[in-house]
Amino acid sequence: VALLVAAEIIAVGSELLTPTRVDTNSLFITERLNACGIAVRAKTVVGDSRADLAAVLTSALARVDLVVLTGGLGPTDDDLTREVVSQVLARPLHEDPALVERLRARFARRGLDMPEINRRQALVPEGAEVLSNANGTAPGLWLEDGSKVVVLLPGPPREIRPMVDALVASRIGPRAGGTVIVTRMLRVAGYTESHAEQAAMPLYARWRDERRPIDATTLAAPGSIDFHLTARAPTPVEGQRLLAAAVAELAGAFGDAAYSNDGRSMEEVVGELLRTSRLTLAAAESCTGGLLTSRLTDVPGSSAYVERGVVAYSNQAKIDLLDVPADLIARHGAVSEPVAAAMARGVRVRAGAAIGVGITGIAGPEGGTREKPVGTVAIAVEGPWGAGVSTRTFPGDRAQIKFSATQAALDELRRALLRWQRGS
Amino acid sequence: VALLVAAEIIAVGSELLTPTRVDTNSLFITERLNACGIAVRAKTVVGDSRADLAAVLTSALARVDLVVLTGGLGPTDDDLTREVVSQVLARPLHEDPALVERLRARFARRGLDMPEINRRQALVPEGAEVLSNANGTAPGLWLEDGSKVVVLLPGPPREIRPMVDALVASRIGPRAGGTVIVTRMLRVAGYTESHAEQAAMPLYARWRDERRPIDATTLAAPGSIDFHLTARAPTPVEGQRLLAAAVAELAGAFGDAAYSNDGRSMEEVVGELLRTSRLTLAAAESCTGGLLTSRLTDVPGSSAYVERGVVAYSNQAKIDLLDVPADLIARHGAVSEPVAAAMARGVRVRAGAAIGVGITGIAGPEGGTREKPVGTVAIAVEGPWGAGVSTRTFPGDRAQIKFSATQAALDELRRALLRWQRGS
Repeated sequence: VALLVAAEIIAVGSELLTPTRVDTNSLFITERLNACGIAVRAKTVVGDSRADLAAVLTSALARVDLVVLTGGLGPTDDDLTREVVSQVLARPLHEDPALVERLRARFARRGLDMPEINRRQALVPEGAEVLSNANGTAPGLWLEDGSKVVVLLPGPPREIRPMVDALVASRIGPRAGGTVIVTRMLRVAGYTESHAEQAAMPLYARWRDERRPIDATTLAAPGSIDFHLTARAPTPVEGQRLLAAAVAELAGAFGDAAYSNDGRSMEEVVGELLRTSRLTLAAAESCTGGLLTSRLTDVPGSSAYVERGVVAYSNQAKIDLLDVPADLIARHGAVSEPVAAAMARGVRVRAGAAIGVGITGIAGPEGGTREKPVGTVAIAVEGPWGAGVSTRTFPGDRAQIKFSATQAALDELRRALLRWQRGS
Repeated sequence: VALLVAAEIIAVGSELLTPTRVDTNSLFITERLNACGIAVRAKTVVGDSRADLAAVLTSALARVDLVVLTGGLGPTDDDLTREVVSQVLARPLHEDPALVERLRARFARRGLDMPEINRRQALVPEGAEVLSNANGTAPGLWLEDGSKVVVLLPGPPREIRPMVDALVASRIGPRAGGTVIVTRMLRVAGYTESHAEQAAMPLYARWRDERRPIDATTLAAPGSIDFHLTARAPTPVEGQRLLAAAVAELAGAFGDAAYSNDGRSMEEVVGELLRTSRLTLAAAESCTGGLLTSRLTDVPGSSAYVERGVVAYSNQAKIDLLDVPADLIARHGAVSEPVAAAMARGVRVRAGAAIGVGITGIAGPEGGTREKPVGTVAIAVEGPWGAGVSTRTFPGDRAQIKFSATQAALDELRRALLRWQRGS
C-alpha cells in the first residue's frame, strides 16, 4: 500500500466564494493531517460548477497522494461533488440499497418520510466505501484509485469533525509516513512584532540547522505575539519533547513576558493565577466598557474569583460608585493616573476584594487632545502587594484600543500575581 | 480589448497552509471584483513551492480571464511568485533601474541603506507594468498575456487594499462586462435558521424567476439570521434599487424582528435608537459578565447614552450595588425573573438613568440544575414605558450563551424603544 505523504483540500460551494464566508473546515483537517505527518500542499475553494471542480480535482490528483473534498454532498441539484468525482475517476455511480434504508430510517426516527430527492445521497461511485456520518444525512466516501486516495466529506463542521477523527485513526494514520508533525505555541505580551522577531532570530537560525529542524513563524495578534513552532519527529512523544525544549529556550529569551506556552489565552492564565492565589478581584472600567470583566468571566469557574465589575463611563458614576473624589477628576481629568488609581482603590474597598483594577482612557474616535491623544489609557492595579499605575498609548480603532487596554491590564495583573506568588 | 468576466485568486505562502491561518485578502478582493461585475470562480492557497504554484497558475489561466496572486513578492528566497509567473508565461525577468532607485529612496527616507537582497523586488517580467505600493517595499505587477490578465500583489492586507482599490478604478473596472454585482444584507433576530428560511422561501422562489434574478443565501450567526441578497444590474444605482425593493419585501415578512437592513450590528441599531430617543441606559449584568455594556460601548459616541454598567457576579454584589433584596434571592434564586427585574430597577434608580437592563443566568459549564439548566437566562428591561422580564434557554458553550443573552437583551431593548418611539 502506497504511503500518504502530501494532501490537498478542496472545499466545494459557491457560498464559500462570497466576500463574507471563510472555509474553516480546512483548518481542522490540516491540523489532523499534520498530526500524522501528512503535509497540506494547497487548498482550494471552488463554486458549484462541474467544469471548475473537475479541473481543480484533476490538477490536485496530479500533485498529491490524498485529496480531501468537503461539501457538495447534499440532496439538491447544486450538490455535484459525487457526480464530478465519479466522472473524473471514471467510476459510474450506483445506488446503495443499504444506504437508502439507512437514510429512510434516519428520517423515520424523526417521524418523517424521506423526500425522494434524498435518494441522491445514496449514490456511490464504483469501488468507493461509505463513511458513516452520525450528525447528518450525507454519508462520506473513501475512494482509492491506484496510489491515490480521494475522500468526500459533507460541509457542516459539526458533521465533519468526528468523521475526520475516525478516518485519521482507522485509515489515514496507518498509511502516513511514520513521522508526525507536531506544533506548539508560545505567546508573548508587551512586545512589538519586530522586537519579538529580533529577540527570536538567533534561535530561529540555529533551529533551522539542527538534525531535526524546527520551523517557527510569528503571528502578531492584538496585544500578543504568538510564536508557532513546528517539527517532524518519529513519534508524538519525541516531537513534543523536541518542541518542549525549544519552547523553553524561546521563553527564556522573553522572561516574564512569555505568558502562555500551551495555547491558553491571557484571561485563562490570569484566572489560573487568581485561583491558585485564592485572591478575589473587582474591576472598575471606563473606556473598556466592561470588556475586561467580560474577558475574565469568559473562563469557566471565574465566579470563584471575580467579585464584581463596575463600568463607570460618566464622571458621576466614578464618583458615586467608586468614591473617586470629584476634585481629583477636576484637577487631573477623567483620563489620568490618579483617577485610574482611585478607581482601582474604590472598587477594591467597596467590594471587599483582594485586588482592584482601574482603567480609564480615550477609545476614540472622538475625545482625543494634543496632550492625551486617542488611545491614551491609564491602568491601575492594587492588591495585597501594593498599588501601581501606568499610562500607555495604543494604536488602532476603537475596538483594538479597547482590546489592547484590557490585554495590558490583564498582563499587569499577571506579572503582579507572579511576583507575589514568588515572594509569598 | 477582451472583457474580464471571471477571476481566480491565488494566495501564495506556506504560512497560510497552517491550521491557524486564514487567507482574508481574498474576501476583500472578491468584494471589489464582484462590485464591478466580475465573478470569482475559485480561490486557492498554495505553499512556497515553484512546482505547485506553477501548476495552480497554469490551471487557473485555462479557466478564467483574470488571475490575482497575493503574497510571495518579498525579498527572500521563499518569495517566488515573480519567478513562477515569469516562467509560466515565458516572460524573462529584468531588473527595473527606476524601481531599484525607488526602493533605495524608500530605505533612505528611514535613514537606512537598502539591503542588496531587496534588489529582487525590482525584477519585472517582460511586458509587465509596475503597480506602486504606498505602504510597503514590494511593488505590484500587471501583466497582459493575450486575452488574459495576471495581477501580482503583495501579501499584507494593509498594502493590498489601496492597491486593489486603485486597480479596480483604473484598470479592472473599465474592462469589466458592463454589469455590476450588488449585495445587501437583512438581519433578523429571534428566529431559528429553519424558521427564517421557511418564511423567506416563497420570496426566494419568486426572485429566482424574475427578469433580473436575485440570489439569496442565509447565514446563521449567533443571535442573528443574516440574509445575503445578490443581483446583477447594468449600474450600481439600478442594482441598489432592485435590492432595496427585495430587502423591503423580505423585511415585511419578519416585521419588527428585522433589525438591520444596512449591515449595522445590533448594538449600532440600539445605539441609534437610544441617541434619537435621548434616553440614558444603565446595565446590571451577572452571567454575561460585562459583555452587554462592552458591546454597547463598542459604538463610537456611546458615552452619550451609556451611563454605567454593573457586573454583579456574587449575590452580595447584587444586594450592595443594585439593592436586590436578600430575601428575593433566597426565595427565587439568583437566576430568576424577580431578581432580573430587581437588578434592572436597582441599576436604573441608582444611576438615575431612563432605562435599566438586568441579566442573570447560568453560562455554564457548571451550575445547571434540572429545573434551571445551563443556558437559562432571565432578562429584564425597565424604561419610561414600563417594565418587562422574560426567561430563555440558550444552547451552546459559555461564550455562545453569553453572546446570545446579550443579543436577546439588546433585541428586547430595541423592540421596547421602537414601540415607545411610535407611541410618543
